[in-house]
Amino acid sequence: MTDHDARTKVYVEGAHGIRVPFTEIALDDSPGTGEANPPFRVYDTSGPGSRPERGLPPLRREWIAQRDDVEAYDGRTRTLADDGRSAVRRGEASQEWQGERREPLRAKAGRRVTQMHYARRGIVTPEMEFVALREQCDVELVRSEVAAGRAIIPNNINHPETEPMIIGKRFLVKINANIGNSAVTSSIAEEVDKMSWATKWGADTVMDLSTGDDIHTTREWIVRNSPVPIGTVPIYQALEKVDGNADALTWEIYRDTVIEQCEQGVDYMTVHAGVLLRYVPLTAERVTGIVSRGGSIMAGWMLAHHEESFLYTHFDELCEIFAQYDVAFSLGDGLRPGSTADANDEAQLAELRTLSELTQRAWEHDVQVMVEGPGHIPLHLVEENVRLEQEWCHGAPFYTLGPLTTDIAPGYDHITSAIGAATIAMHGTAMLCYVTPKEHLGLPDRDDVKTGVITYKLAAHAADVAKGHPGARDRDDALSKARFEFRWNDQFNLSLDPDTARSMHDETLPAEAAKTAHFCSMCGPKFCSMRISQDVRDRFAQREGMQEMSRTFVELGSSVYVDAGSRPAD
Amino acid sequence: MTDHDARTKVYVEGAHGIRVPFTEIALDDSPGTGEANPPFRVYDTSGPGSRPERGLPPLRREWIAQRDDVEAYDGRTRTLADDGRSAVRRGEASQEWQGERREPLRAKAGRRVTQMHYARRGIVTPEMEFVALREQCDVELVRSEVAAGRAIIPNNINHPETEPMIIGKRFLVKINANIGNSAVTSSIAEEVDKMSWATKWGADTVMDLSTGDDIHTTREWIVRNSPVPIGTVPIYQALEKVDGNADALTWEIYRDTVIEQCEQGVDYMTVHAGVLLRYVPLTAERVTGIVSRGGSIMAGWMLAHHEESFLYTHFDELCEIFAQYDVAFSLGDGLRPGSTADANDEAQLAELRTLSELTQRAWEHDVQVMVEGPGHIPLHLVEENVRLEQEWCHGAPFYTLGPLTTDIAPGYDHITSAIGAATIAMHGTAMLCYVTPKEHLGLPDRDDVKTGVITYKLAAHAADVAKGHPGARDRDDALSKARFEFRWNDQFNLSLDPDTARSMHDETLPAEAAKTAHFCSMCGPKFCSMRISQDVRDRFAQREGMQEMSRTFVELGSSVYVDAGSRPAD
Repeated sequence: MTDHDARTKVYVEGAHGIRVPFTEIALDDSPGTGEANPPFRVYDTSGPGSRPERGLPPLRREWIAQRDDVEAYDGRTRTLADDGRSAVRRGEASQEWQGERREPLRAKAGRRVTQMHYARRGIVTPEMEFVALREQCDVELVRSEVAAGRAIIPNNINHPETEPMIIGKRFLVKINANIGNSAVTSSIAEEVDKMSWATKWGADTVMDLSTGDDIHTTREWIVRNSPVPIGTVPIYQALEKVDGNADALTWEIYRDTVIEQCEQGVDYMTVHAGVLLRYVPLTAERVTGIVSRGGSIMAGWMLAHHEESFLYTHFDELCEIFAQYDVAFSLGDGLRPGSTADANDEAQLAELRTLSELTQRAWEHDVQVMVEGPGHIPLHLVEENVRLEQEWCHGAPFYTLGPLTTDIAPGYDHITSAIGAATIAMHGTAMLCYVTPKEHLGLPDRDDVKTGVITYKLAAHAADVAKGHPGARDRDDALSKARFEFRWNDQFNLSLDPDTARSMHDETLPAEAAKTAHFCSMCGPKFCSMRISQDVRDRFAQREGMQEMSRTFVELGSSVYVDAGSRPAD
Repeated sequence: MTDHDARTKVYVEGAHGIRVPFTEIALDDSPGTGEANPPFRVYDTSGPGSRPERGLPPLRREWIAQRDDVEAYDGRTRTLADDGRSAVRRGEASQEWQGERREPLRAKAGRRVTQMHYARRGIVTPEMEFVALREQCDVELVRSEVAAGRAIIPNNINHPETEPMIIGKRFLVKINANIGNSAVTSSIAEEVDKMSWATKWGADTVMDLSTGDDIHTTREWIVRNSPVPIGTVPIYQALEKVDGNADALTWEIYRDTVIEQCEQGVDYMTVHAGVLLRYVPLTAERVTGIVSRGGSIMAGWMLAHHEESFLYTHFDELCEIFAQYDVAFSLGDGLRPGSTADANDEAQLAELRTLSELTQRAWEHDVQVMVEGPGHIPLHLVEENVRLEQEWCHGAPFYTLGPLTTDIAPGYDHITSAIGAATIAMHGTAMLCYVTPKEHLGLPDRDDVKTGVITYKLAAHAADVAKGHPGARDRDDALSKARFEFRWNDQFNLSLDPDTARSMHDETLPAEAAKTAHFCSMCGPKFCSMRISQDVRDRFAQREGMQEMSRTFVELGSSVYVDAGSRPAD
């Protein structure tokens, strides 16, 4: 059985025409006993698939319309400057989106259209039902956690293509993949491909962090093709609009950029509103200063103007905008440590206290909130980060980058950070932002994106298992059983990355017969502990007495330990 | 400055002609301030280097001789069967060792020559002094920890080529790399190359787990060329001597194999003496049975004979042999869990209680001991493993394989296990046995060995930092400072794998000028937070008032955010 035959997409149906996707993995019968192994279902983030130039079908359009609280409107006037200086210079946008264009939606006057708003009023939305089927939990858990602010369902009404998902510590740990071009490299097609590639391997959300050319158009292509929520950092585009001159930034330019992105369908936005003027001096003695781009841009602006951050002073206005589109805050940690030396310092914790205040202000507007976290943290300080965030920010979901647990392994920071990520998620972080092997060194390519996603899937899963999340270990157990029974194809197909597992195995034992062999090249046939152990087990299964077992094992002994060549696929 | 220029081997000298190697990394001055950054020294496991056919110089020969407690003797008679059935069939060993052959040494009658024996008598050996210089600690700490059994210095008197090292929780966390052929693959030259390659990247010990052809000769080449302690699992070779027929194993054949390896210079041996007959039924209901090769072989033998393990019944005799050569026990965990489902179960813990008893029996003979640990353990149960081992085994050093924290990522088990490894080491594990990406799938090749070693170096280091080990974070801080100051070459050279860091950086920015550029391709020049943050920092450094700072930052603003092309290396 090949990978392609074994993995299929299936849908679980609910009310309102809800169809929740799962990947179903067909399993072989157990050899010997002939026991049937039921197909195994896993969470599926890959979306329905589409041709990139057409975009995905608007799955949620009817659900949104039926609530009768939104209106279509003309929207903001698109300008060439939205795509940056090179588009202005050229006089045209490159690769303008040619698929379906819908008028943007917003809340009717005086209405709020956020999932939190509905949840607080006791309304169970189709989005919540979708999530409950997907998480295999009670829908009331979904509603109540969203109502309490302990979970969010990021779902801009202008991104109806999404398959709803939830971020909160009572649910499966989620992962985010960052993509996006920079001034130095990459194209629109590459970024769309990275997004699809990331969701194929399990990214639950994708952040488009583009800072280069064609920023508006790149995002349009990504949003229209993304089955998962898209996050952005609007300050990047705003800075592009003022030619990269941070002190020329204004609230008006920022606000215009936010509305542009709300209308496009961005589901959550990182806003570094907790970086206050008085916190900037706290970073002066740090080993690595300010390492958040948004944080450093705003620090520069505040010092230039000697004024409080407009993100902070206009925060309520931002909440009002977000409430009209159901955009969620990802409250940025602009003063996160960029080295283990700077971890949990006064700058970081001062900002976290302000994020606590901002969380409550957003909730007053029924706006969904998650809180971002570091960064670089030595392993013994990791737990404290999530504990403080949960206490101070009233249980708002924590969304952390790593954290990296040492600074000495550039090229391997997906691993230095997976250690911190699994640990912080075990203690309550709801979503992990991946780190790729290229962190600190360059822009990730397609292979780096895959490595980052798989690494973070395994870290998130390790945390789910450690938390005792219902059913989380089922996949481990199914794979371990397949391993013990030498069902090699099942072992590959149940793994996070069947292609890599299969190709590593096939490097030394490519023959199809080796897929049922009771050994691999690691130990060879004579030393395969699982094979020997199975023989021991078989005796027990037959419920023979120890005396009998002893006698038959002596007989068996001579046949178990045969030469490599004689019975390889036995 | 290139990697080769920047990294040199230096020696710190002590009494008795002791010369302790370090890698010294030359650093550039800080740009701007011109501040000199002193060369940085790191622990060096790579040895003096040699031509493989000649072997390494016998560094410790004089130290051993001067104690006047050993004698040379004829040694056991070498037989072709030592190299397995194919050598017997051929009628000759392949690639017999042609370098210097020394008569084996053993303790004079009635003497014990273990480091533990000396330590308990208050004797400070040159080996202890070497270790103290290497660990940069007081030699009394070394002596007292070895005397108490909380640390070991594995140093067979027939392996004088080693540069002494210590394994104990008060010292740097160590890592072991497994190499060795199997019936299916690889050659002597490949295995010697893997050993050298592993120590080049930082392996503190190497285990030769060969189970294929030429097992004696392969080991001879490895031991003669290894600057680090070599570990083995003698039961593998013993089984080879009985044609793979486990029930034909006897104490006499096992004992002969152990002496053969003692005479060759093996520094520590894994002995699965804790797998008792009555524990075997405890594995019957497990998901993955017995996954230790040694454990499953002995389980098979015990069931076949319905007799207690000869490793257990002859344990004291084994101790007497080990005491004559200073071979350390690595008490094997033959019933370690092979899946997260089986973690911390009764089979595992029953064996650990027996290992507690065996630890004390070995100590009665002044024989050094470490205790092996799992395996596969969900993250929330990891700490319990080391806590129980430390309590039950009276502080004997713990030596764990991983543990893997989830079973669903074959192909990435270096990462699933690095998560567990960093965590268990933070809580007190003294040495970590690496896991490569090929775990469960095939025999690791050269690239896998490197990936495994670097992954475990970073996990061990993350644990050292988390434990607050004196000076551990210095390297992180030096690298972070280099990063913040855009000393790219220093950042590469200070990292665990300069080649990979450099090549990842150079994929997008290969020009030499980019090695001093104030950005990389990840964010590009405009969005480099470290660059912007440095500008903020510079204002503080000049101790200007906030008013002044505000004014100058506005001026600076226009020049900071310039186009990518105009000031790339600024």
